Amino acid sequence: MNIEIINIGDELLIGQVINTNAAWMAEQLNLSGFRAYQFTVISDSRDHILHALAEAAERAEVVLISGGIGPTKDDITKHTLCEYFNTHLVFNEEAYRDVEAMFARRGWPVTELNRQQAELPENCTGIPNKVGTARGMWFEEQRSDGGLTIFVSMPGVPFEMKAMMTDYVIPRLKQTFRTPFIFHKTTLTQGVGESFLAAKIEGWENSLPANIKLAYLPQPGIVRLRLTGEGLDEDALHCQVETEIVTLQKLIPEYIFGYDDESLEMIVGRMLLEKHATLATAESCTGGTIAQMITAVPGCSAYFKGSVVAYANEIKEHILGVSAENLEQHGAVSREVVTEMVTSLQSKFNVDYAIATSGIAGPDGGTPEKPVGTIWIAIATPDEVIAEKFFFGDSRERNIRRSALQALNMLRRKLKNQ
Amino acid sequence: MNIEIINIGDELLIGQVINTNAAWMAEQLNLSGFRAYQFTVISDSRDHILHALAEAAERAEVVLISGGIGPTKDDITKHTLCEYFNTHLVFNEEAYRDVEAMFARRGWPVTELNRQQAELPENCTGIPNKVGTARGMWFEEQRSDGGLTIFVSMPGVPFEMKAMMTDYVIPRLKQTFRTPFIFHKTTLTQGVGESFLAAKIEGWENSLPANIKLAYLPQPGIVRLRLTGEGLDEDALHCQVETEIVTLQKLIPEYIFGYDDESLEMIVGRMLLEKHATLATAESCTGGTIAQMITAVPGCSAYFKGSVVAYANEIKEHILGVSAENLEQHGAVSREVVTEMVTSLQSKFNVDYAIATSGIAGPDGGTPEKPVGTIWIAIATPDEVIAEKFFFGDSRERNIRRSALQALNMLRRKLKNQ
Repeated sequence: MNIEIINIGDELLIGQVINTNAAWMAEQLNLSGFRAYQFTVISDSRDHILHALAEAAERAEVVLISGGIGPTKDDITKHTLCEYFNTHLVFNEEAYRDVEAMFARRGWPVTELNRQQAELPENCTGIPNKVGTARGMWFEEQRSDGGLTIFVSMPGVPFEMKAMMTDYVIPRLKQTFRTPFIFHKTTLTQGVGESFLAAKIEGWENSLPANIKLAYLPQPGIVRLRLTGEGLDEDALHCQVETEIVTLQKLIPEYIFGYDDESLEMIVGRMLLEKHATLATAESCTGGTIAQMITAVPGCSAYFKGSVVAYANEIKEHILGVSAENLEQHGAVSREVVTEMVTSLQSKFNVDYAIATSGIAGPDGGTPEKPVGTIWIAIATPDEVIAEKFFFGDSRERNIRRSALQALNMLRRKLKNQ
Repeated sequence: MNIEIINIGDELLIGQVINTNAAWMAEQLNLSGFRAYQFTVISDSRDHILHALAEAAERAEVVLISGGIGPTKDDITKHTLCEYFNTHLVFNEEAYRDVEAMFARRGWPVTELNRQQAELPENCTGIPNKVGTARGMWFEEQRSDGGLTIFVSMPGVPFEMKAMMTDYVIPRLKQTFRTPFIFHKTTLTQGVGESFLAAKIEGWENSLPANIKLAYLPQPGIVRLRLTGEGLDEDALHCQVETEIVTLQKLIPEYIFGYDDESLEMIVGRMLLEKHATLATAESCTGGTIAQMITAVPGCSAYFKGSVVAYANEIKEHILGVSAENLEQHGAVSREVVTEMVTSLQSKFNVDYAIATSGIAGPDGGTPEKPVGTIWIAIATPDEVIAEKFFFGDSRERNIRRSALQALNMLRRKLKNQ
């Protein structure tokens, strides 16, 4: 069964926006046992859309379209779909009520443009949009060979498209087409690069059974290892994949922090919650990134008290109480200062656990003794204080990200052992 | 003149690698007055490649191909191009000497696989590869209408493709085709949704000249408005687009914060630098996000002193000095508390400007009087303190992001007027 993904948008074709939608859609399809055959990116133009739809229908049974269904003039996908299916727009009462209700909650007036968004082609099923105003559209067309071709039109805004794919499109595709069982499990590692990891687990990787495939999915600071198994018996397949993961866990226990969609900040949060313990951060080079990650998790107020972002040395001294002598003698990027930061914060914020960071994120500020990428991280627990030095790379963005992840993983290990 | 970009690679179609090549190629083409008409992503399969080449030749005068010309077995693009052009491979002495020289520099032996990389289809011109072993290929095919269709095959490895595009492909395309000038300028707005913005600028949009097109590019909290002009006189075109932007600026001055690739945090940083002024943030609901955004900008230590993330009320009280009475009487999400946060921070951190946020990001914590999405933002300048209440939506992630952007834009307006 072939699936074609069509992404509509002039902003994609001039390279202003990178087409992340197609990759995300393809990955999600894969996780459900489907496979994308082709991606096609076209412009917001009637002729081009009509042409692409006709071509896609020749080679695919399912055509997933994103883009061009917003409220503005350049959004012409809906009208062009009407033309392609030789139908017309009909006002959809339910779609309108959804928009009205969303706007009422926010205290906004409904404009004529929003009203027009509640008009849908007569022959489609509207797909609810929980996070935006444009409904998706599900069309089914009878082919001359008797089969069905399915066309689905979704918004181009990534979070609206993602919600629709997850809540509606993929479940309905799974109902419509029978696929073999596919089971994915992703093991999350932190603190080891892709090539070192590959060398460590080479023997295990080579001995994987033929129906289980391994993919390396690297991100800055994190390498995800995804196992994908395919089989006819669901329970046996799960068991087979889990057994391989137990073996992997024994090979690299220090680097594995979680599985699938967990994040380090979620895992650390859950561990703190279980211990009824509290946390605060004192951040210099990470500039609030650790606090930002922790507070992205709903319910974090149960364990996170707050943070001092001590970017300037005077803030380290006057707000955190780091001694002028240590700053003068050892510099801000030192074991002494990061240790004082973490202990002072722990007592001022009256928390059980604390994290502190101080480093040279770059691009400027490096010296021969402390080059860009030098980062000190300290962790305070109820029983001890540890500090460790790392050398990351040249990129400011990656240095900040890797420091934050490394700090959270150090805290996770302490929480696990206490 | 239509250009189609074909990217070949199974890793793209399973979503493991995001197709950044197409966006980069399109952007470079645009900067030289060319326009990509379509992107097509296909698999490393003979049939699929042959089919895509034939389709592209029907709608494009130039077909730029990347991927599938490495030394391994799954790299079948070169053989398939031979088949498409009904030709055969010929050993290319010059290409072989290039590979030999590169390997000699690195002290590597030349393998049989590398030797095969010096074989090129007889009817193409080889394109030198300064950073890798696979030559690019430039084909010209006479069409039945007398015109030429150009096919260019390049490696999929981004830095090899980029070097070839810059050094060879774009210069030769510019020699071959005369192109009109294209000029893009993107106006960045914050604090107004896409549909409200569309209603406000409808008259202006409708009166745009035919050679200038408008596109709405929404992101959470930000809507970008891109004008694209096309013309034969470069200076006149720039002037024409800039004139339209002056008119737009007069219509919605409060929402426009910058142009093209600027970010709010970069603009605010530059304004602070010009004033030799300093900034700090006191963040509750934004949890360090504003500090994180500001410190992502290199050189921010010249104006940013730091932040207190006062997530728990006891931190607001004991570290920032917010009065227990105000917290008790008005609650943390109130004009009184956010104002005390900002003034106290301004004096404790000894800064010229300060930002404070306090709100209910969700999903929990809402009440009938203060539903999820209620956010107070305060700005302190050397002369005054302002506080404003906003109602955003239901999503925690978006509430945090929109609050941070709104706060930065409020600060920008104050910096502009002082």
